[in-house]
Amino acid sequence: MPSSTTTPISLTTTILLLSLLLLCFFPSLFHILWSIPLALLTPSTYVPHPSTKPPPSSPIPPSPAGTMSWFQKSITLPSKSRGSYLITDTILKEIPEIKEYKVGLLNLFIQHTSCALSLNENWDEDVRADMSDALDRIAPEDRKGELYRHSAEGLDDMPAHIKSALVGASVTVPITNGKLNTGTWQGIWFLEFRASKHSRKVVATIQGEKL
Amino acid sequence: MPSSTTTPISLTTTILLLSLLLLCFFPSLFHILWSIPLALLTPSTYVPHPSTKPPPSSPIPPSPAGTMSWFQKSITLPSKSRGSYLITDTILKEIPEIKEYKVGLLNLFIQHTSCALSLNENWDEDVRADMSDALDRIAPEDRKGELYRHSAEGLDDMPAHIKSALVGASVTVPITNGKLNTGTWQGIWFLEFRASKHSRKVVATIQGEKL
Amino acid sequence: MPSSTTTPISLTTTILLLSLLLLCFFPSLFHILWSIPLALLTPSTYVPHPSTKPPPSSPIPPSPAGTMSWFQKSITLPSKSRGSYLITDTILKEIPEIKEYKVGLLNLFIQHTSCALSLNENWDEDVRADMSDALDRIAPEDRKGELYRHSAEGLDDMPAHIKSALVGASVTVPITNGKLNTGTWQGIWFLEFRASKHSRKVVATIQGEKL
Repeated sequence: MPSSTTTPISLTTTILLLSLLLLCFFPSLFHILWSIPLALLTPSTYVPHPSTKPPPSSPIPPSPAGTMSWFQKSITLPSKSRGSYLITDTILKEIPEIKEYKVGLLNLFIQHTSCALSLNENWDEDVRADMSDALDRIAPEDRKGELYRHSAEGLDDMPAHIKSALVGASVTVPITNGKLNTGTWQGIWFLEFRASKHSRKVVATIQGEKL
Repeated sequence: MPSSTTTPISLTTTILLLSLLLLCFFPSLFHILWSIPLALLTPSTYVPHPSTKPPPSSPIPPSPAGTMSWFQKSITLPSKSRGSYLITDTILKEIPEIKEYKVGLLNLFIQHTSCALSLNENWDEDVRADMSDALDRIAPEDRKGELYRHSAEGLDDMPAHIKSALVGASVTVPITNGKLNTGTWQGIWFLEFRASKHSRKVVATIQGEKL
Repeated sequence: MPSSTTTPISLTTTILLLSLLLLCFFPSLFHILWSIPLALLTPSTYVPHPSTKPPPSSPIPPSPAGTMSWFQKSITLPSKSRGSYLITDTILKEIPEIKEYKVGLLNLFIQHTSCALSLNENWDEDVRADMSDALDRIAPEDRKGELYRHSAEGLDDMPAHIKSALVGASVTVPITNGKLNTGTWQGIWFLEFRASKHSRKVVATIQGEKL
């Protein structure tokens, strides 16, 4: 007889506890259960659509923040003497995380003031040799001691600072579907302006939405 | 008599279960209940304030990630022969999504190495003509064949690469309250360095927090 | 005798309720308990490791969006006549929010077209004087009236626009562990190209993940 009064309680308790446990392990059920009455009252603004791959030229639409993330890494470039160097492959090898991003931006920032990063022609190495020579004419060495006050670190130092200001310490490249979205003939350049080899560090920062 | 021993249990159980259900449907109560003892011990650093619209010059404060989003689109600029062109209106027309962002950055990246993007004076078209001429003096054509190795693609090609390195392939412009936060006299420029018309593509990337 | 049938129920109930309460106050336990069976079935890709501070060169890994945020503020630079000025300290003082970001990017955008922002040598002020003089040679004043159409605003105006296009209106600097991740000899420069003092505004935008 006592069990007839306690059994209903234990049954209710058990069902409620099991429901709660179920809800605890699938927390998104809370939201669904809770928003059902609201969903019946207001017309839905969210219509699920099939995940067809968009053509490359169509815009990548805004999306919720759920999969956004940051990545940052310091890399050291191969030391080079004065010249312009194509480093696209070095960057892709050092930062394989680019492949993980559906949409985003890669910022490369060189932590020095007598070299630079740029984007330029990726095919003919004559372009790179011509670039270094052209910059030498734009910011020449001060062989007669008439041009610069700052000369303690060598003839090539002040021209290097000027070229660095003109070309810039960083580049920002869009990422689209796991790839750098550069043009066909566009590569990432590292320009060393000092005559002798120096160790150069680049801070690479990716921000974007993951695939 | 048996009920006198089971009733207290069922009452306690019911109250606890109802409390738990309430907590389950309002999960933020967990945090409030849990942080009350801490809040009493330490002075609060978060003071809720009325949502008055701040004056334009006041900083836009950090905010949670809920409304952040990315947008990316490839656009084709009107083909132009050598010269400097104001493209602010083209950008605003092609990327109406700028209006949707409360705070953010617009990155425009041109996928070519013999033209450039810049920000400059938006009023007097003489400034644009003077700019193209000045860049011609800084990176001149090689009419005597003394300056450049790379000449297969025409006299105007190597100077175009040099100007591209100097001016740059991309601009980043802040977005504030749905508008590009440029200065009064500041416009977005497209600089074509090749003599003849070329088709030029720009990847536009917006990242920010939506209105 | 009745208590012998109800006691087991109340005991079970009490234990379950206490477990649930415990889980409610430490929600991450749900995830751990839930993923234990999965973790036993599949090789783990996530290995918890002690929270030792990583060496500076190790990458900051991607992380969920929970703590991402934006900050934007308009600041006015101290008015200066023609010259190059180190403004790193001004920026750090005006934007103490940099300290709040674990990883991110600071974009500084100057809203004018006859001055510029750059990154360059932060030690010898001769470098700054030499830079201004070198830019004067690259984009000279038009004393004979042969170079520029645009002259209504003064001899120094058109050269200022050219220098602005060459050096650029904005810089983007990585933030790492609450600090600007610039190199040892790298500072933020403000270059005023007009002869007389002008009031110059900078829009500072931080995007990143908070500490």
